[in-house]
Amino acid sequence: MNKQQLFEQIQRKKSFLCIGLDPVLDKLPKHLLKYEDPILEFNKQLIDATHDLCVAYKPNTAFYETRGVKGWDTLVKTWQHFPKDVFTIADAKRGDIGNTSAMYAEAFFNEQSSGMSFDSVTVAPYMGEDSVSPFLNYPEKWVILLALTSNAGSKDFQVKQSEDQKLYEQVISTSSKWTDSNQMMYVVGATKAEEFKNIRTLAPDHFLLVPGVGAQGGSLSAVCEFGLNKECGLLVNAARSIIYASNGEDFAEKAREEALALQQEMEQILLSANLI
Amino acid sequence: MNKQQLFEQIQRKKSFLCIGLDPVLDKLPKHLLKYEDPILEFNKQLIDATHDLCVAYKPNTAFYETRGVKGWDTLVKTWQHFPKDVFTIADAKRGDIGNTSAMYAEAFFNEQSSGMSFDSVTVAPYMGEDSVSPFLNYPEKWVILLALTSNAGSKDFQVKQSEDQKLYEQVISTSSKWTDSNQMMYVVGATKAEEFKNIRTLAPDHFLLVPGVGAQGGSLSAVCEFGLNKECGLLVNAARSIIYASNGEDFAEKAREEALALQQEMEQILLSANLI
Repeated sequence: MNKQQLFEQIQRKKSFLCIGLDPVLDKLPKHLLKYEDPILEFNKQLIDATHDLCVAYKPNTAFYETRGVKGWDTLVKTWQHFPKDVFTIADAKRGDIGNTSAMYAEAFFNEQSSGMSFDSVTVAPYMGEDSVSPFLNYPEKWVILLALTSNAGSKDFQVKQSEDQKLYEQVISTSSKWTDSNQMMYVVGATKAEEFKNIRTLAPDHFLLVPGVGAQGGSLSAVCEFGLNKECGLLVNAARSIIYASNGEDFAEKAREEALALQQEMEQILLSANLI
Repeated sequence: MNKQQLFEQIQRKKSFLCIGLDPVLDKLPKHLLKYEDPILEFNKQLIDATHDLCVAYKPNTAFYETRGVKGWDTLVKTWQHFPKDVFTIADAKRGDIGNTSAMYAEAFFNEQSSGMSFDSVTVAPYMGEDSVSPFLNYPEKWVILLALTSNAGSKDFQVKQSEDQKLYEQVISTSSKWTDSNQMMYVVGATKAEEFKNIRTLAPDHFLLVPGVGAQGGSLSAVCEFGLNKECGLLVNAARSIIYASNGEDFAEKAREEALALQQEMEQILLSANLI
């Protein structure tokens, strides 16, 4: 999905919500345990209940890998269940030397090779350009590069000052020379709302993937105040607050209610910003 | 495997060789294609032919993920084939917020969960302490943290100067407070031999995992000049030069010859350093 198509989906659905599909077997509604693959059933019902309210889904690969081969199979089948009109994010935080990153790109972008073809993959920037560029060889596929993350550990290296710039600022400045805003997004945590103004001076046109609203404590309105741009430019992720809204038989219905509340809030924000 | 046991294996085998198992289907000897899982057969024969000459094996997960569920199955079965006396490294370069890194730790360390229990996993430092610490909750399991990598992109961020330290130096200084040299190693590329002296002042007791000898052009003797410590402190990885030594029916025999040449060079180095 290219940038224009993504913005069209945002306008059509009046939403810039991304739903994080990070399922843990222990937290699943008990009635799903009778299915051969309870996590797949959980994901499918969540997708069916919410896909008109969100523009993106983001399974975090860790939650699948933890179950080995079985989990990887669930990930492939979850990918197969995504409707065509959603932007799909493999939240994998990969990155390695060039020839190895090319293998990761195949894993997430080449259906013939791996059974999956996501629209995008999250990538860690530490290893630099040749660890990122292999992902950019796929037209209309995206790299979502870690910039300023939502966790406590983001203070350890990302905000260290160096040559007049913090590390995360260097990551944005340097990587924005590798490609343009049609194939690159940045991860910026919602818990860092005070930095969005600064980030928009470095990356005015890029989409930002924003985790940390909900369970992690970030505020949607604070993020939007400085984060919105002329094509919306934000994908705001919520996971636990939606997927675990209920652990009863009504889990999908309650997930829809949570997603709807966020979509309605987003619709007001888009209207106020004259984006719809 | 703990640090003392690792050093004992190095002394017993007179080797600090790590073999990278990074197989690509197109490069495999043709006669293996008749097997149901040619890559598994390739790995098994390589392991059988070399395990007395090396102390560690390092499959890079990218080379397995690229083949989806099938590839993940090969990885699990390769892990099952490792002899007990080798140190095993999941070269996965993972790292995410705390609760997600805990899932990755299960994926690579908890056999009940994922079918695999490696001795160690490579981790990317960008997201800081809470992205690393969940891996340290497993006794006698190791984090191998990216410090100064062997690729061209290492110049983009890792060597940027900040507050009197380059980023990779900060990574070592800061992370060495999270645990000691009994559970943490660092990745330092063999192509950076001039930095080993400096790294040994920051991390005198840590093992270093050193890729980049062989196909990437790094020199074993240059690495050892400043890299060796009183428990050897080095695991030097070679992949392509060993696993693709021949693409004929003699591939395992030729791989053994390459591994033997490196082992013999390492034996001389260990003797000269009075470590055996």
